[in-house]
Amino acid sequence: MTARVKEILSWYGSDNPGVKANLARLMNTGRLAGTGKFVILPVDQGFEHGPARSFAPNPAGYDPRYHVELAIEAGCNAYAAPLGFLEAVAGDYAGDIPLILKLNNSDSLSKLPEPCSAVTGSVEDALRLGCAAIGYTIYPGSGDRNAQLEALRELILEAKAVGLPTVVWSYPRGGGVSKEGETALDVVAYAAQEAAQLGAHIIKVKPPKAFLEQAEAKKVYEKHGVPMDTLADRIRHVVQAAFNGRRIVIFSGGEAKGTEEVLAEVREIAKGGGFGSIMGRNAFQRPKAQALELLAAVMEIHAAAR
Amino acid sequence: MTARVKEILSWYGSDNPGVKANLARLMNTGRLAGTGKFVILPVDQGFEHGPARSFAPNPAGYDPRYHVELAIEAGCNAYAAPLGFLEAVAGDYAGDIPLILKLNNSDSLSKLPEPCSAVTGSVEDALRLGCAAIGYTIYPGSGDRNAQLEALRELILEAKAVGLPTVVWSYPRGGGVSKEGETALDVVAYAAQEAAQLGAHIIKVKPPKAFLEQAEAKKVYEKHGVPMDTLADRIRHVVQAAFNGRRIVIFSGGEAKGTEEVLAEVREIAKGGGFGSIMGRNAFQRPKAQALELLAAVMEIHAAAR
Amino acid sequence: MTARVKEILSWYGSDNPGVKANLARLMNTGRLAGTGKFVILPVDQGFEHGPARSFAPNPAGYDPRYHVELAIEAGCNAYAAPLGFLEAVAGDYAGDIPLILKLNNSDSLSKLPEPCSAVTGSVEDALRLGCAAIGYTIYPGSGDRNAQLEALRELILEAKAVGLPTVVWSYPRGGGVSKEGETALDVVAYAAQEAAQLGAHIIKVKPPKAFLEQAEAKKVYEKHGVPMDTLADRIRHVVQAAFNGRRIVIFSGGEAKGTEEVLAEVREIAKGGGFGSIMGRNAFQRPKAQALELLAAVMEIHAAAR
Amino acid sequence: MTARVKEILSWYGSDNPGVKANLARLMNTGRLAGTGKFVILPVDQGFEHGPARSFAPNPAGYDPRYHVELAIEAGCNAYAAPLGFLEAVAGDYAGDIPLILKLNNSDSLSKLPEPCSAVTGSVEDALRLGCAAIGYTIYPGSGDRNAQLEALRELILEAKAVGLPTVVWSYPRGGGVSKEGETALDVVAYAAQEAAQLGAHIIKVKPPKAFLEQAEAKKVYEKHGVPMDTLADRIRHVVQAAFNGRRIVIFSGGEAKGTEEVLAEVREIAKGGGFGSIMGRNAFQRPKAQALELLAAVMEIHAAAR
Amino acid sequence: MTARVKEILSWYGSDNPGVKANLARLMNTGRLAGTGKFVILPVDQGFEHGPARSFAPNPAGYDPRYHVELAIEAGCNAYAAPLGFLEAVAGDYAGDIPLILKLNNSDSLSKLPEPCSAVTGSVEDALRLGCAAIGYTIYPGSGDRNAQLEALRELILEAKAVGLPTVVWSYPRGGGVSKEGETALDVVAYAAQEAAQLGAHIIKVKPPKAFLEQAEAKKVYEKHGVPMDTLADRIRHVVQAAFNGRRIVIFSGGEAKGTEEVLAEVREIAKGGGFGSIMGRNAFQRPKAQALELLAAVMEIHAAAR
Repeated sequence: MTARVKEILSWYGSDNPGVKANLARLMNTGRLAGTGKFVILPVDQGFEHGPARSFAPNPAGYDPRYHVELAIEAGCNAYAAPLGFLEAVAGDYAGDIPLILKLNNSDSLSKLPEPCSAVTGSVEDALRLGCAAIGYTIYPGSGDRNAQLEALRELILEAKAVGLPTVVWSYPRGGGVSKEGETALDVVAYAAQEAAQLGAHIIKVKPPKAFLEQAEAKKVYEKHGVPMDTLADRIRHVVQAAFNGRRIVIFSGGEAKGTEEVLAEVREIAKGGGFGSIMGRNAFQRPKAQALELLAAVMEIHAAAR
Repeated sequence: MTARVKEILSWYGSDNPGVKANLARLMNTGRLAGTGKFVILPVDQGFEHGPARSFAPNPAGYDPRYHVELAIEAGCNAYAAPLGFLEAVAGDYAGDIPLILKLNNSDSLSKLPEPCSAVTGSVEDALRLGCAAIGYTIYPGSGDRNAQLEALRELILEAKAVGLPTVVWSYPRGGGVSKEGETALDVVAYAAQEAAQLGAHIIKVKPPKAFLEQAEAKKVYEKHGVPMDTLADRIRHVVQAAFNGRRIVIFSGGEAKGTEEVLAEVREIAKGGGFGSIMGRNAFQRPKAQALELLAAVMEIHAAAR
Repeated sequence: MTARVKEILSWYGSDNPGVKANLARLMNTGRLAGTGKFVILPVDQGFEHGPARSFAPNPAGYDPRYHVELAIEAGCNAYAAPLGFLEAVAGDYAGDIPLILKLNNSDSLSKLPEPCSAVTGSVEDALRLGCAAIGYTIYPGSGDRNAQLEALRELILEAKAVGLPTVVWSYPRGGGVSKEGETALDVVAYAAQEAAQLGAHIIKVKPPKAFLEQAEAKKVYEKHGVPMDTLADRIRHVVQAAFNGRRIVIFSGGEAKGTEEVLAEVREIAKGGGFGSIMGRNAFQRPKAQALELLAAVMEIHAAAR
Repeated sequence: MTARVKEILSWYGSDNPGVKANLARLMNTGRLAGTGKFVILPVDQGFEHGPARSFAPNPAGYDPRYHVELAIEAGCNAYAAPLGFLEAVAGDYAGDIPLILKLNNSDSLSKLPEPCSAVTGSVEDALRLGCAAIGYTIYPGSGDRNAQLEALRELILEAKAVGLPTVVWSYPRGGGVSKEGETALDVVAYAAQEAAQLGAHIIKVKPPKAFLEQAEAKKVYEKHGVPMDTLADRIRHVVQAAFNGRRIVIFSGGEAKGTEEVLAEVREIAKGGGFGSIMGRNAFQRPKAQALELLAAVMEIHAAAR
Repeated sequence: MTARVKEILSWYGSDNPGVKANLARLMNTGRLAGTGKFVILPVDQGFEHGPARSFAPNPAGYDPRYHVELAIEAGCNAYAAPLGFLEAVAGDYAGDIPLILKLNNSDSLSKLPEPCSAVTGSVEDALRLGCAAIGYTIYPGSGDRNAQLEALRELILEAKAVGLPTVVWSYPRGGGVSKEGETALDVVAYAAQEAAQLGAHIIKVKPPKAFLEQAEAKKVYEKHGVPMDTLADRIRHVVQAAFNGRRIVIFSGGEAKGTEEVLAEVREIAKGGGFGSIMGRNAFQRPKAQALELLAAVMEIHAAAR
């Protein structure tokens, strides 16, 4: 075990050995093994956006085996997906790569008054499928906040008890934030803090924009001159907001875009002290060879950052 | 066990032997035994539409024994019904045909703000009645999505634990989809994907129309030229949307209609790679002799398709 | 045990011996013992309509002992009441007559958006009080349908497990049906079917009127010429709707009225194949001697009908 | 044990010896021991109306010890209060007087759409604190009726199982009754009946006024000439509505008022067959000496009534 | 153990030795050990107001270790925080200072119809993390009162059973009180009483203003001349409202302000008989040396007050 991995594990001093062992498993897997950096492949878009929007650009992705194989070949730290996609591969690829079961999901068919994912899996499922962690999405800013936080609380406690760490997707959305505010710096930093306070082991947020949403927060950012001009500055602030860097924070790539654009963003994330990337559409919607190339480049950037 | 049945079972690699044995039981029953194809008789219309609308055309159907006998004589893979109809026959026909207990149902008397069936049976009931599977209806697009998905999640997990597979009726409906959109290709494909992601073993959807509902999806279908002119094309896409054909997808017949019309539709379903038909009103509202004839013809088409 | 009682029990082939024994107990009690016919005294009006409206016409009825004694003397098959009324007599009259604990009740003081009774007793109470069955009211047509059906589902399963059959009061009411529609033939038949599908052992509905509520149903009734001119015709259709007569269906008397009017209605119920009467206000609001006389006449009609 | 206490206990023939023993404990305590009459001191006003409104008139009452000592010195049958007030004295006064834990309470700070107390204690608390009974408030007429009745049902069953009787405060209130109707004779009688049907052992209502609220009830009261001119007449009717006097019904005093006014009301309650008084503000808001004097006078009236 | 600590423990006569031992642990820790006075450091602002608004003024506070170290060095009785902040330190600082796990929290991102914190931790978490007490916030005046009080009831009972006392933050807020009324004397006194009645061991309220909110209460305050001119007068009344001083009541400092202003307020709190201060932003938003100085001064004032 590298010194860096040991250092990161030391931040989780209240967790039991089971949780620490699974965190170590995530950090000791793939090309970034031992660096304390992460590149995770998440594929929940079939559920969240629908099958054709997700897989028509690269129809190989309709097959659940495609993604887990991509993650293995690319040397990702882990592969994250909803229940069905993991059911379809967990048996045949047992032990090949750490799996993260996403325990709640939304579809794009229903219109709910406030954003709130359905709980579609359980800790028992994660154990049954041999997963190394559970994942859960919260929408800070949603009017259904309490239902989401209370479900998460139960799941984290239940997962800890069986040695599973929790990855929290913390996406501000709903009646309490504007559309632009969803990626505002103050809001993304708050989303990271909130996930950390809820007991998340790994936190996934979107790269923040140079915009401040909340009037009360804006005053403080301006008074204390919090740097926010470059993406690296903003990443640094978000990492600070997650217990001064003592919680693992990784960043999503968002919509599919050009290779250079992706890599430029990743470089800023790395420079700002981000712990890694979680990259879905930019990976699986490319032909496999290109996806492997891109993921290799992303990993190289993160590996070099420390 | 035929090679095809073994192949299909191999897709369910994370399931325990109990679930696989019941899937095999469904596939090794009736005239289509061993082909991996399905014709299932479902009779929930007494609950869903009322008794006279369902059984007045063929009053023999008021008697719960009529349907199970029809399914046995026709050589169906299984007979599916709500609790009461199964209670009335499970004891006397024990072992004669696999039974599927439909665990939730709606009536046509109540007006709810958003479509949401009541949970009217349990896994314990399914076990008590000797069933081979449970059934559950979701309405993707409903504002009550979360309640439905969360109840389904619990039931699938509970059923798996006792070796029962789950058949999901996935019917888009509610505030998130237009009336026409309920059978739009993108929406039906999404409904199939969603059921698969939720862990369904067998998915029942309606045959899709050559129509696209969601603006975001439409762009993708058009850009990538997803074929959708013939029903066979559309069936093929829906099967692809269910994990590239690695989940069993069967199609309902809908309203009673003429024999030729039914068979023409079934031929397209078979040609497109559908795994079979679930045929209610078109079977039990015909006089028994005609129903047996029709079901035999349907089975022949499915058997010949591979 | 008479052949008729054995025949009726044979319809409940999926039930355990405990449930069958209690059904037999109901059928082998009182003047109608062995006939497969029922006259049950229900007294829930104190809860549902208030004490004075229920008992001022015959103040002896304020005393809970009055009703159980009336039921015993009249030779009823059973006495049904809410928790409090049974608590007050179950100890002292233990073993004298089968008791049915009504597990949910409404008062006339509250105004709820949609009709939904409160669950006011449990299966554990029924066991503790030595009851032979539980009773439960559903309001098909209510916007609170799901809560009612789901509570009933749990109670039926729980009751079955301890050998108690379930009597379902199935009263269409709420936003999905018009006031007149509550006793429409199609709606009452639907209410009987729905209760049967939910697993009711005994179904109580109101005598249907020669009126059709639902447009879709109306077409079918007219097309297939379902007879509905006489009350006997309509009773026959409702019994048919309850699994072609393979579930026990009994009819309520409704508001207090003249003796001849009551008996005329009962004659039609008997002629149409109804399994009996459940008669509350027409019994306990008369002076005891008259009530006994009326109940004897009602029993005579039912006994003669087969 | 006096014959009267034995007689009253005989009305609870379905209860277990534990419940009967606690009912006996209540009836065999204090100055009214053995008479079957009750004077109970309830102090929930600190929670329901706030501390200053409750205790500023006699500041000794801020101290929780004051009330239990007042009840003991006055020779009350029991002292009833919410969790906190009992926590503060149960240990030090263990065995000195039967305690009744009020399991739900409202404050006057919140505005809820319909009246519904919060459940603030449990049967486990009552056992832990050595109580002789639990108390619970329902608001017949509230749109939240079902939640209240269903919680009460659970609590009564749970309490019975551990030998605790239940005192129900039955206060009509909410969208289904007018302000004046809250103390209308028909409504109070209905509230007493409803509590009795729910399984209450002791019922607390307000003294009814000579007013009828419900149109349907009014017709019946007038047709049958139910006497209602004097308070004694009305008390008699309410007691009749509680199972013809076979359930213990006690009456509250309401707002603080002059001694003569209080005693005049108590005389009518006693004359009408009421089982006693539950007297809060009229007791604890007076200086202790006056309170003891008043309570002694009230007890004398009740003792003399039989 | 000092006589004063013994005296305070004697007020909790119904609690088990485990709860008393933890109360004693809180009172026997830090500079105020043995005095029965409290200075607690609470840091939930990262969750409640967001990270930058909380920690940008003194960025050392982004690190969860900063706060627990501050509390230890300052000689506080305890350190209170949400789950995440305690997870991050409980292991490494085990045994160094009593920890209080705040079991519910709100963020400032969501807009809920009525204030209601999410339950974000459990008694099991508190035990797992070695805490000496749990904390819970209620909003008397909120339309979600019942959900909050009922959750608190469960948590207090559960915590007691494992020997943990409960600290209740009682903050009037919501549709039932005006903005100004949130710190009105009558409302704060009511909030203290309500927390005490719910079974709180330690009650935290805000220092009340010389304002009366509720019309009914105002009449009583005026009639009985309750003193309220100085803050000390008002503190005295609030302490009286908490069972005449037999429950521990501590006061928060509110927004960050000048040192003299803070100390002036603390002097009034001490003079009025308050049991201590719970001081967050005024402590951790100052540079550490200044914070230690301020906390020392606050402790001195409280120590001298008796």
